[in-house]
Amino acid sequence: MIATTLDGFVIDLDGTVFRGDQIIEGAPEAIAALREAGKRLVFLSNRGNISRAMCQERLSRYGIAAAMDEIVLSSTVTARYLCKHAPGCRVWTLGDPGLREELESFDIVHAEQPENADWLVITLHETLTYRDLNDAFRAVRHGARIIATNADRSFPGITGDQIDVAGMIGAITASTGAEVELVVGKPSALMAEAALSALGLAANQCLVIGDSMESDIGLGKRAGMKTALVLTGSTVQAPVGLWPARPDWIWPSIAELASIARDKGERTV
Amino acid sequence: MIATTLDGFVIDLDGTVFRGDQIIEGAPEAIAALREAGKRLVFLSNRGNISRAMCQERLSRYGIAAAMDEIVLSSTVTARYLCKHAPGCRVWTLGDPGLREELESFDIVHAEQPENADWLVITLHETLTYRDLNDAFRAVRHGARIIATNADRSFPGITGDQIDVAGMIGAITASTGAEVELVVGKPSALMAEAALSALGLAANQCLVIGDSMESDIGLGKRAGMKTALVLTGSTVQAPVGLWPARPDWIWPSIAELASIARDKGERTV
Repeated sequence: MIATTLDGFVIDLDGTVFRGDQIIEGAPEAIAALREAGKRLVFLSNRGNISRAMCQERLSRYGIAAAMDEIVLSSTVTARYLCKHAPGCRVWTLGDPGLREELESFDIVHAEQPENADWLVITLHETLTYRDLNDAFRAVRHGARIIATNADRSFPGITGDQIDVAGMIGAITASTGAEVELVVGKPSALMAEAALSALGLAANQCLVIGDSMESDIGLGKRAGMKTALVLTGSTVQAPVGLWPARPDWIWPSIAELASIARDKGERTV
Repeated sequence: MIATTLDGFVIDLDGTVFRGDQIIEGAPEAIAALREAGKRLVFLSNRGNISRAMCQERLSRYGIAAAMDEIVLSSTVTARYLCKHAPGCRVWTLGDPGLREELESFDIVHAEQPENADWLVITLHETLTYRDLNDAFRAVRHGARIIATNADRSFPGITGDQIDVAGMIGAITASTGAEVELVVGKPSALMAEAALSALGLAANQCLVIGDSMESDIGLGKRAGMKTALVLTGSTVQAPVGLWPARPDWIWPSIAELASIARDKGERTV
C-alpha cells in the first residue's frame, strides 16, 4: 500500500513530468497529492546540460514547486563526483552552458584554455560548433580525462529523435583514442545514491517513477527500490515477459499517482 | 635511375607540396623539373572537403599548373565509387561545401531531406554545427549507409593539431550504432587505382611521394610502386628499422626531386 509502505518518491523528468515543452497531463496534481500525503520526493534526471536553478525555474512554470535539494541532475552528480574525487581540478566543458553553470555552483574552476584542463566534462551540446569539438579535442590531447554526464544516444525532439550526448562523446573518443572514464547518469549507483541521500531514506522505502526501462526501472531494480514505469515517454507500450526486470507497476502516466496518494493506504498498488 | 626507370609520379599535397597555407620551398620547381623531363604526374590527396576545381585554383596560386585530371582527391574517388556502385543514389553530406561541389561535378544528387538519402558521405567539416550533426544522424536513422572520404584523426592546423574526419565519423556511429561501410582515402587500393588510372601507367613505373608513412608509403608499398618519404609534414625524422615498410627513399623535402629529375638518368636514386 503506497501511502503506508512508501515514504520517498524518485521522479524522472523528461517523458515522465514533461515531454518536449509540454507538461504531462495530471503531473502537477500528482506531485501536489504526494506532498499533501506528507511524502518526500526528489526529481532525478539524466539531463546534464542544465543547472538545478534552470530546472527549478522550468518546473515552476508548470506550477510545480521544488526546493533546490529536491532536484538531482546528472550535471549535479558530476559536480559532486569531481568535488570529492578531484578536488581543486580545472575542467573544460563540451556541452550547453547549463553544465558550466551547475559546475560553477559547486565552485569548480573552468580552465582558461583547453590545454590546462584536468577533466573534460561532456554533455548534450545543442549549440555545438566545430570550434567546440576542436577545443574538447585539444583538452584531451593535452591530457584531460573524460567524464560524461550521461551517454544517451538520442532524445525526443520536436521534429523527431535528435542526436544526444553519445554523439559528442563519440567525436572526442574516436579522434583522440581516449576513453570515457565515467558515465555519471542513470542507471548508475551514483545517481541512485544521490537520490536516496537527498531523500534521507533507505532504498526499500522508496519508489522510482520513470519512462525508461533502462535508466529508471534499471536504476530502481539495482538499488532495491520499488519501480513504476509510465508510458508517456520513451516507452509507450507495456513491456511483457521482463522478469526479473519487470517494473512493480506499469501506469499510463504519472497522473495515476494522484489517486493512489489520496487513497492514503486504502489501496494496494 | 629515376629518369629512365620511372615514368609516373604520384604526389601527395598536405605536408608534401604545402603545409597549412605555406608552399614547401622548392616544390613548384621540382614539379616543373618533372614536367621538363617529360614525366607524367598526378596529385593524390586524402582531402575530401574540397573539390578538384578548388584544389586546382589553390595550386595555381602557388605557381603550379595542374590539369583537372591530374588531381585525384578522396572526394573525387568517393564520387566515382558512388557513380559505379550506387548509380542514381541520393546523398546527404556531413562535411565542408567542397565535398558537395565535387559530388555534384559527377552529377550525384543531393537529397532534399536527410530522411531521403541513400548514402551519408562524411568528410572534414570545419564549419560544423549541432544541426549538421543532427541532420547526418537523421539520415542514418532513416537508413542511409555511411561512406567516409577518409578517417584521419587529426590534421596540422595553424595553432596545432585539429580534430579531423574521425571526429565527425565517431559522432554519427556512436549515436546511431551504424558502421562506416567504406573509408575511401589512402592507403586504400581505390586511391592507388585512381592514381594509376589517371597516369595510365603500371605501378612498377611509378613513384609515390608523401609525408605519411601510413597513407603514402603504405599505399605505394601495397600497390607495388616505388616510395619516397619527405620530412616536411607529419613525419619529421627519418624513421629507422622499418623493413619491409621502409620507403625506398627518404628526402628532406620534395625539392630533392628537382635535381634528380634534371640528372636525367645520370644519378641513381
